[in-house]
Amino acid sequence: MRKQVLVTNDELLCGTVLNSWKLVLGRADQSFMSLTDEQFQQPVAPGKNRLLYLLGHLTVVHDRMFPLLRLGTRKYPELDEYYLEHSDRALPDPLSVPVLKIRWTEVNSELTSALGQLTPTEWLGRHQDISDEDFAKDPGRNRLAVVMARTNHLSFHLGQMALAKRAG
Amino acid sequence: MRKQVLVTNDELLCGTVLNSWKLVLGRADQSFMSLTDEQFQQPVAPGKNRLLYLLGHLTVVHDRMFPLLRLGTRKYPELDEYYLEHSDRALPDPLSVPVLKIRWTEVNSELTSALGQLTPTEWLGRHQDISDEDFAKDPGRNRLAVVMARTNHLSFHLGQMALAKRAG
Repeated sequence: MRKQVLVTNDELLCGTVLNSWKLVLGRADQSFMSLTDEQFQQPVAPGKNRLLYLLGHLTVVHDRMFPLLRLGTRKYPELDEYYLEHSDRALPDPLSVPVLKIRWTEVNSELTSALGQLTPTEWLGRHQDISDEDFAKDPGRNRLAVVMARTNHLSFHLGQMALAKRAG
Repeated sequence: MRKQVLVTNDELLCGTVLNSWKLVLGRADQSFMSLTDEQFQQPVAPGKNRLLYLLGHLTVVHDRMFPLLRLGTRKYPELDEYYLEHSDRALPDPLSVPVLKIRWTEVNSELTSALGQLTPTEWLGRHQDISDEDFAKDPGRNRLAVVMARTNHLSFHLGQMALAKRAG
């Protein structure tokens, strides 16, 4: 007997948002993976962040999505100091490019897999930084909104990376 | 008698996506509106697109969303030649900054208003560039996906504009 898969509107809507996250993440992956270790040392524009810093920054921001989305504990909190709390070149690089690339891939892979398990009702659940009381007043502050905000954050930095890559 | 407003999961999901579009658009507005006519002539990085070109480019790309989303005819097709088909500085600027700013605001205002009228089922309808047959195979190619793609496109260029603004 042929198995019939029924997809509800809710599921289609959430699937479309998850697909947008995967699409932009795939572009970022492609950009980062095509760079040589030397190119990672280039700034996106004169005097601006190096590509290496952006890789670290995005790894940290995505790692922080685990607790923010109430999907578990984060993996590499020790990187915050280097890629979130301090600006580029303020501290020595804590990891080599190949190791940082592995962190980036691990974080995104585990995160995307966890997002794929969410039901529509879970997508509409509150994120960690809002109280039940405030969430009752503004149900738009849900997991879906966080993932779209992070997708746009990633696009924001992809735009900057595109400038550096054409220059290098 | 108190009026009770029931919001379904579908509506909340679509509302969250529309809110993400409005949020990023609001940031773009704020960036563009804070620039002087002189600053619009600056490139986002040495040798790259001027802010004026990005304003024109984003206006054109958003204007093209009317037919793409099957929401009506577009307003300024004559701008494509300058801001989509040719690169920056290839042709003389067709409009002054103040007039282009008005076009930008008109397009976004009408577009966002039209998006606000869509029902969840309409959000999940196909976009113009896909046939009914292909859409049946891939229902992810819907209006919602287009709006998220354009929101990310806007964020991509916002990231570039942020570099120019700090420099200028």
